[in-house]
Amino acid sequence: MTDTIFDIAVIGGGPAGLSAALTGRIRNKNIALFEHLDFSLKLQKAHLVDNYPGLPQVTGKGLMQQMSAHCLAHEPKQIKAKVVNIFPGEETFTIATPQDIYQARTVILATGVVATTLFQGEKELLGRGVSYCATCDGMFYKDKDVAVIAYGSEGEHEANYLGELCRNVYYLPQYNTSLGLMRSDVEVLKVRPRSIQGDSQVEKLVTDQGEIKVHGIFIIRQSDPVENLLPGLELDGEVIKVNRDMSTSIPGVFAAGDCTGKPWQIAKATGEGLVAVLSAIHYLDQLKSKVLGPAKNELD
Amino acid sequence: MTDTIFDIAVIGGGPAGLSAALTGRIRNKNIALFEHLDFSLKLQKAHLVDNYPGLPQVTGKGLMQQMSAHCLAHEPKQIKAKVVNIFPGEETFTIATPQDIYQARTVILATGVVATTLFQGEKELLGRGVSYCATCDGMFYKDKDVAVIAYGSEGEHEANYLGELCRNVYYLPQYNTSLGLMRSDVEVLKVRPRSIQGDSQVEKLVTDQGEIKVHGIFIIRQSDPVENLLPGLELDGEVIKVNRDMSTSIPGVFAAGDCTGKPWQIAKATGEGLVAVLSAIHYLDQLKSKVLGPAKNELD
Repeated sequence: MTDTIFDIAVIGGGPAGLSAALTGRIRNKNIALFEHLDFSLKLQKAHLVDNYPGLPQVTGKGLMQQMSAHCLAHEPKQIKAKVVNIFPGEETFTIATPQDIYQARTVILATGVVATTLFQGEKELLGRGVSYCATCDGMFYKDKDVAVIAYGSEGEHEANYLGELCRNVYYLPQYNTSLGLMRSDVEVLKVRPRSIQGDSQVEKLVTDQGEIKVHGIFIIRQSDPVENLLPGLELDGEVIKVNRDMSTSIPGVFAAGDCTGKPWQIAKATGEGLVAVLSAIHYLDQLKSKVLGPAKNELD
Repeated sequence: MTDTIFDIAVIGGGPAGLSAALTGRIRNKNIALFEHLDFSLKLQKAHLVDNYPGLPQVTGKGLMQQMSAHCLAHEPKQIKAKVVNIFPGEETFTIATPQDIYQARTVILATGVVATTLFQGEKELLGRGVSYCATCDGMFYKDKDVAVIAYGSEGEHEANYLGELCRNVYYLPQYNTSLGLMRSDVEVLKVRPRSIQGDSQVEKLVTDQGEIKVHGIFIIRQSDPVENLLPGLELDGEVIKVNRDMSTSIPGVFAAGDCTGKPWQIAKATGEGLVAVLSAIHYLDQLKSKVLGPAKNELD
């Protein structure tokens, strides 16, 4: 944990997050930019973009390079890690990655679309056996049995760490690349998870090849469902509910880009990122005037 | 009047209008782009823009050149005229410029900020002696007395035209460039208008140097207050009230950019232009399905 309290934590480095971080830095705010997906994997794959005004016929990759270079030249603090939890506190938000925790006065969610279908039982048992972060929650499962469902090789580190703590660790890789170095006591299972079961706590993981009795299940995806990052955040269907100023149901939390709904387009994302960061700055100004109390001439 | 019915009339050629027209053309819609201010005079004057993601350190003029070239390459029908009135009809909107009228199925208002302070009495007497267009309304004042208040030399054409029809025409130029060729029976007055008076109809114009008795007052500004373009349009304070999909209180009418409120920023404008045009296209699709009736298999 560092001592810095950031003015604004921007979660996500696609067009919305880059736009927010860019204007935030130009407005001289202390910005943390959390980015672990190489600035929008989705856009990187776009063959040709022709409707971002002013930049005709660019490749997705070229556009992301221009946008990220433009933003990073203004030096936001870049943090290459996935945010796994955001806790609202009294004056700041605490933002957890698997490696570290950070503090910020406001948060802009620019996490993109999570095209994830949750496992049956996942939402109901979140925090009661289901977790997205071994570093955060591993200690709760000391000497117990856990499964790790992983959609990328970063899951291997999580499983190895859990191997030090837990009685039995089952590792279920859901990706095709070959496994790296893993502890011998981590049991690798080439099966597909189907559902998570348990009454008040996780009891078992059902797979296409039978059940595994476990106390805890760690799910390591590229992106987690955003409502699980920040419990209590109000949704509108599957997207984050926002007002015209991009504020959400939680004071101090703003959202921008694909995570607020369609159209999933670059100009919409950059526009919303801009509006979100200016709204966050307005919120910070109000916080400051609260702390400073009434203007001096009223006290005279 | 032309026979073409446009799918979408975009009113205004700043960043919001250009973004709407660009994506509309890419989506193969028949677009009329009404633009008479050289693609955002305001932005042209901006010395340096550094927060439009992907294009660092551009001049306002350079950015507008890139955006307008990008859009015009996709060939919207460019109409270099000021829209003075929009009339909702049963299936189409009628859009009037001083020279001609046009038809479109949907309208996107991207008229920017109108920093106009209205004259006292102007709003109350609009349509009852106050007009923004001599070509549209001049005939109502045949053999009567009118004043023309003009903020640019285009007012001279309006006054000359009224000189052919009316008994007395008073011309009040509110600009510094010298006057062009004007009819000798148009009386030029170097005075400042103060207010418009009358009970149910315009009776007189009050100036800093006395009153002028008139039946009609034509006010020729660079931009008219948008609520006067399209009567009944719901406002939120001084800006057009919009929903998240940029729809307004009038079905088929969308709005984008500075005319929907702050922040007055380019990325916000281009993002809203994009959202507005996609919403207009969605509206057109629904119109079409209404006309075609229920899907064929329901009739079988």
